[in-house]
Amino acid sequence: MSKPLQQLQERLGKITDLERISRLLSWDQQTMMPPAGSDHRADHLATLRRAAHELLIADETGRLLDELRPLEESLEPDSDDAALIRLTRREYEKAVRVPTDLRAEMAHASAQARPAWVKAKAESNFAIFLPALERNFELRQRYVACFEEVEEPYDILLDDFEPYTTTAEVREIFAEVKAGLVPLIGELRDVELNDSFLHGDFPVERQRRVTNDVVELFGFRPGTWRLDPTEHPFASGTGVDDVRITTHYDPETINSLFSTMHEYGHGLYSHQLPRELERLPTGNACSLGIHESQSRLWENLVGRSPRFWSFFYPRLQETFPEQLGAVEIEQFVAGINVVKPSLIRIKADEVTYGMHIILRFELEQDLVNGRVELRDLPRVWNERMQDYLGVEVPDDAHGVLQDTHWASGLIGYFPTYLLGSVMSVQIWEQVVEDIPDLEDQVERGEFGGLRDWLREHVHAYGRKFSPQETLERATGSRIDAKPYLAYLRAKYGAGVAA
Amino acid sequence: MSKPLQQLQERLGKITDLERISRLLSWDQQTMMPPAGSDHRADHLATLRRAAHELLIADETGRLLDELRPLEESLEPDSDDAALIRLTRREYEKAVRVPTDLRAEMAHASAQARPAWVKAKAESNFAIFLPALERNFELRQRYVACFEEVEEPYDILLDDFEPYTTTAEVREIFAEVKAGLVPLIGELRDVELNDSFLHGDFPVERQRRVTNDVVELFGFRPGTWRLDPTEHPFASGTGVDDVRITTHYDPETINSLFSTMHEYGHGLYSHQLPRELERLPTGNACSLGIHESQSRLWENLVGRSPRFWSFFYPRLQETFPEQLGAVEIEQFVAGINVVKPSLIRIKADEVTYGMHIILRFELEQDLVNGRVELRDLPRVWNERMQDYLGVEVPDDAHGVLQDTHWASGLIGYFPTYLLGSVMSVQIWEQVVEDIPDLEDQVERGEFGGLRDWLREHVHAYGRKFSPQETLERATGSRIDAKPYLAYLRAKYGAGVAA
Repeated sequence: MSKPLQQLQERLGKITDLERISRLLSWDQQTMMPPAGSDHRADHLATLRRAAHELLIADETGRLLDELRPLEESLEPDSDDAALIRLTRREYEKAVRVPTDLRAEMAHASAQARPAWVKAKAESNFAIFLPALERNFELRQRYVACFEEVEEPYDILLDDFEPYTTTAEVREIFAEVKAGLVPLIGELRDVELNDSFLHGDFPVERQRRVTNDVVELFGFRPGTWRLDPTEHPFASGTGVDDVRITTHYDPETINSLFSTMHEYGHGLYSHQLPRELERLPTGNACSLGIHESQSRLWENLVGRSPRFWSFFYPRLQETFPEQLGAVEIEQFVAGINVVKPSLIRIKADEVTYGMHIILRFELEQDLVNGRVELRDLPRVWNERMQDYLGVEVPDDAHGVLQDTHWASGLIGYFPTYLLGSVMSVQIWEQVVEDIPDLEDQVERGEFGGLRDWLREHVHAYGRKFSPQETLERATGSRIDAKPYLAYLRAKYGAGVAA
Repeated sequence: MSKPLQQLQERLGKITDLERISRLLSWDQQTMMPPAGSDHRADHLATLRRAAHELLIADETGRLLDELRPLEESLEPDSDDAALIRLTRREYEKAVRVPTDLRAEMAHASAQARPAWVKAKAESNFAIFLPALERNFELRQRYVACFEEVEEPYDILLDDFEPYTTTAEVREIFAEVKAGLVPLIGELRDVELNDSFLHGDFPVERQRRVTNDVVELFGFRPGTWRLDPTEHPFASGTGVDDVRITTHYDPETINSLFSTMHEYGHGLYSHQLPRELERLPTGNACSLGIHESQSRLWENLVGRSPRFWSFFYPRLQETFPEQLGAVEIEQFVAGINVVKPSLIRIKADEVTYGMHIILRFELEQDLVNGRVELRDLPRVWNERMQDYLGVEVPDDAHGVLQDTHWASGLIGYFPTYLLGSVMSVQIWEQVVEDIPDLEDQVERGEFGGLRDWLREHVHAYGRKFSPQETLERATGSRIDAKPYLAYLRAKYGAGVAA
């Protein structure tokens, strides 16, 4: 190996380590940390962020990248080394514009905003959160200002979550999705389906057992994962052999099952990233949109399908006999697929989910562009929920305070959820084409074929290519709303699910 | 504040952060991490260790220390700033001798040795652990070789755990302790006391509740702590507001209670360190010996006293009525104070405990000086256990593999346990003198007075002074084996405890 390439890899290895350590600290903060530890944690995350940033923007990194230019040009563009140099150059050129102090402040402010958000949500009082939110937005404005002026400042934020993707491209896809969703939601608005059996008494201890069973069934290598309760489900981990997923247990519903499947999809992606690229940026996930395509695929295409439940429903009935013993499988599958405009994004059905995202995508742009003031957020939020979904927001906890993202400084993140949902259907259709008996496998509770397909066609690329190139390698096409809309219409258009 | 002092403090803040992050990673590894994550963890710990070491040994640190010499000389030696410059200079001068690669390798090898030790202990097979142990010792030999040649290489290892303390000083104290213990153990060897009620059926769920109650009773500020199960109990945390203690639950004994009290003592020390020195090395604990004086004080002076149990025994009887309902408090207190030579250090009574440490202290020196080969450890261990305690070691799991320290690369650490035990009695006697009704407070389940005394007279000094100076400030004397031996003889010399 060339000496500069080796030096670059060593440097990137340290940066990757520091980033993964930050992930562990965030996981810990959301699952294990005594609440009073927030201030320590803010210092620690800022120090890690600073150290990683300094390693990336060091003159030495620039010098190595310059030295590696001839090598890069001589390599096959698809090769691991060419992809590594290309990706590092892109990340270096972005990072070098951002002062280390700003990076550290962004990490520090986000870690401190979290407890303010937790308190504000618990008391359903937006005012408690507003100062921390203003700080996070102000820091993002300063971050945007580090870059050359662009027509859409939101592009800069979006690129950190969905690289090589512009606001205009997202707007175009979302317009098409919205045009499909609005009439579909209208058609379904008056359909009455009984899902009352999904609300009642679902003891948390039993939910814990059954969510663990689902993870075991979907499958990770032994000794590589854990599942913990948290307020707001997420997936994390420190590498392919240390995957940590979380879920939220509500004693009155079985939503934990679907959030577990969702986070399993994220976790499997992390778990099947290319081991040979561990400790390199190319060994990371491609983008949050691609990540979300994986979580949505397991949650919706597998986890809300009649085939899956024909395998797993007896186990669920055994676990909750009082609630589900007398509910037929057809009723149950219809119940978990009821479409009904509602308040909470993470509990939304597949059809209305997109509208929650489109609302946030538009609102974030309005905030970044100064068309909406942060202090007016609750009012604007509530008006748009009325416009887009026809629902009345009773309080901030069920409105603008429901998500943790802005508290964590994640602005520009939300659109990746809907991009992922759209791509999940394109990927699923390709899997079905490549594995003709896939649905029979699902019905037998066998997931090895699906896992292997995803590893080979999606996960193995890591972050070597752009999201759209990765999708094209997996499915032959770039992002396309049509299969997604066709899937929704086929599944729900008759007005009855399943 | 002087500019160089501020720059030094910023640098030390980052180093402190990185060290505390390492502590979190180690805590996570021993309580939460999926077992397959060990290799990632080794990389991550090595990267953190490397980053902290590089910050400490940077030319800039030396330059700042040089610049600060006049300021240091002008300051009151007891002041925070003088202590900070003095301590940093000492740590810098030690660290600058050690190559970063070696530091990183030491961290990496320790993290990798841990799973080898876990496996070796589980299978009671020393051979599984030997290669990792050889690696750890070889790296420590290389570490020792970084320093100027000294008569006792063990001094260099010891100094990392008990600074300003020589092997010769420890040897002298231990000789005095040994001379007191050997006849006392001899006298007690044939005393038969019934403690059979301490072995039986103690359901883990109930142990969890009662250990939590003990921690609540002894007291931390709310929202600042957690207690988790682990294989080998320890205390950790990331700062004064994030204290993490661990215990081991054995369904057949209530040892978890005493290890919880022990780790509480460590945790309280971390919890009451001076907040104004947070993120500075002077805000750390003074030494492991002083640390152990705190854990031993809570475990033994409080936790094995009749006064404590006259308050807490009813609660314990309620928790385990089948086992303890018919056992009188006098029997119980005698039972938890039975002296009996045994195999496992962390389960040893107060009297024989010292011999476990003296054995390890001598053996470590023999290993470091090449008088004993690592591959002969099981044989030599078993022979010495026979000599020192008259017990037959049935297998390596109950012998040389029982402790995690050598797996973690902690060589030179063990003697601090006995130093701490000795000092705990000196400190206790001073508390009793200063708070005449202390024992009545304990009997009423009130611990605020004791906590406050410890904060003011021990914890508040942080790491500003050497262990012996700290002890002298707390008690008026340097380390002295006499009070310890007098205490043991008074408590146990009659042959009956309590």
